[in-house]
Amino acid sequence: MTAPIYNRVALIGLGLIASSMAHAMRANGLVTEIVGHAKSAETRATALEIGICDRVYATAAEAVAGADLVVLAVPVSAMTAIAAEIGPHLAVGCTVTDVGSVKQAVIAAVAPHIPETAQFIPGHPMAGTEYSGPRSGFATLFVNRWWLLTPSAEVDAVALARLESLLKGMGAKVNAMDPAHHDQVVAVVSHAPHLIAYTMVGVADHLAQVSQSEVIEYSASGFRDFTRIAASDPTMWRDVFLTNKDAVLDILGRFAEELFVLQRAIRMGDGDHLFDYFTRTRAIRRGIIEAGQDTSAPDFGRAPLAEKPAGKV
Amino acid sequence: MTAPIYNRVALIGLGLIASSMAHAMRANGLVTEIVGHAKSAETRATALEIGICDRVYATAAEAVAGADLVVLAVPVSAMTAIAAEIGPHLAVGCTVTDVGSVKQAVIAAVAPHIPETAQFIPGHPMAGTEYSGPRSGFATLFVNRWWLLTPSAEVDAVALARLESLLKGMGAKVNAMDPAHHDQVVAVVSHAPHLIAYTMVGVADHLAQVSQSEVIEYSASGFRDFTRIAASDPTMWRDVFLTNKDAVLDILGRFAEELFVLQRAIRMGDGDHLFDYFTRTRAIRRGIIEAGQDTSAPDFGRAPLAEKPAGKV
Repeated sequence: MTAPIYNRVALIGLGLIASSMAHAMRANGLVTEIVGHAKSAETRATALEIGICDRVYATAAEAVAGADLVVLAVPVSAMTAIAAEIGPHLAVGCTVTDVGSVKQAVIAAVAPHIPETAQFIPGHPMAGTEYSGPRSGFATLFVNRWWLLTPSAEVDAVALARLESLLKGMGAKVNAMDPAHHDQVVAVVSHAPHLIAYTMVGVADHLAQVSQSEVIEYSASGFRDFTRIAASDPTMWRDVFLTNKDAVLDILGRFAEELFVLQRAIRMGDGDHLFDYFTRTRAIRRGIIEAGQDTSAPDFGRAPLAEKPAGKV
Repeated sequence: MTAPIYNRVALIGLGLIASSMAHAMRANGLVTEIVGHAKSAETRATALEIGICDRVYATAAEAVAGADLVVLAVPVSAMTAIAAEIGPHLAVGCTVTDVGSVKQAVIAAVAPHIPETAQFIPGHPMAGTEYSGPRSGFATLFVNRWWLLTPSAEVDAVALARLESLLKGMGAKVNAMDPAHHDQVVAVVSHAPHLIAYTMVGVADHLAQVSQSEVIEYSASGFRDFTRIAASDPTMWRDVFLTNKDAVLDILGRFAEELFVLQRAIRMGDGDHLFDYFTRTRAIRRGIIEAGQDTSAPDFGRAPLAEKPAGKV
């Protein structure tokens, strides 16, 4: 095992991403010690109990003192207050990064509070599950997943390379891009799909002609894929949509136009239009499998359905 | 092993569903022999090669002669012609079923051609994968999945019970409902989600500001779940939308309204509305997992991503 890349990492926020980082950093011997802060005393106690932190602190300011890496892993809406709190307490030469799903808004919230003696390198691990909280983390969450960085042109090259080593040490693939472009990319591949999934699940929730128990019972034919996405953390996603508003609204506008064109084709009985459209979309799936971004196993290689529990509809 | 339920089953159409039925019927000793028809000579040759049929026939009329169960497993748009062709050749006392995803349109297409000496029992196995063709079938496709039947009030009770035994013998759970209600249920849980997935994938396909290689490379953050659904068989889905038009357009109309309300909440910065909405949809996911309709494993229990193949972007 090589020498640790950082001496003390401070995790600010102890949810799915931070706890997965803790497991991955420990499993790969990447850091000497991990300290943490979470707003909730219960979360801090859990972090100690399951061993993801060596020490926890009731304030972010205490947690960052003496750390050479600070990871902001709180909802985007909490970033401004946290950055203002920790700014004066950051060690000289330390690196601050974040794991927010949007980048322009996080940069606007955090950068003004980071002193010149520290480096701020915004980041976004494109990994997650539909679960949240400190107990949901696991060491392999980032393996072969992208971790996008959006460093400014002025960032220190040594600090950047050091952070990249940490991320690669956890198994991630690292790429850098402009923050505005990042926000457009994630609006397409992540934010709009999530809003659409939430919408479809919401529609099913208040139909009169089909009961909710029928929706649940027969969900395996497509709907259930949407419900997984629509089970993601509500706070995180509220913040995503509010802070990447322009890019998300642009994609949703295009989506609505496209949907209306297909709706019209259905209404007019234009089978050729539908067939051609569905043939093109099939090719994109092949591209994703060839790029190693999803399994080619049928139905995601899902385990077979369980027996229906006794007493259910 | 108990006695076979049918002597000779004729599979008309030899794609994912029919080939899975063949594997499942053989694995469970449910039938004595399986014969088949497919329009394409190549598909017929494949069916013999991989052993899903004992004999194949170039016409559906020849295939059904002497069969005590006929399964129509062709796209919905092909049902009328096939039913007209086989009607005069059905054995006295035989049962005809189908596996179409819509029921009212199939009944209208098929029922007029079935003689009084045969029983027509429409069916819909709610199972499938994103793959198609005779080589995509497997014996466990129907295990713990619903197989909905929409029999008319006049159907022979013995014939119905016999068909149900076959379906349960392949591992399916069987339920009966009215054809119109069936078409509404599947519009919500299957047809509308598929159209929405196709639409989202189509939007990503012709964006200028985000390249297609970026969409593919970063798809793991939500988008790839849509692409799996949008990789389903184009012919089958064209027919589904054209033949379950009213129910699908009703759901899509509701979906568009709901989407606009959420879009407006994003535009107006109404975080409370978004948070409440996302919290309600999370509960539906829990219901689906509790009902045994999906795995609770994070990310569907997907295998970790593969290494990026050499030479790719």
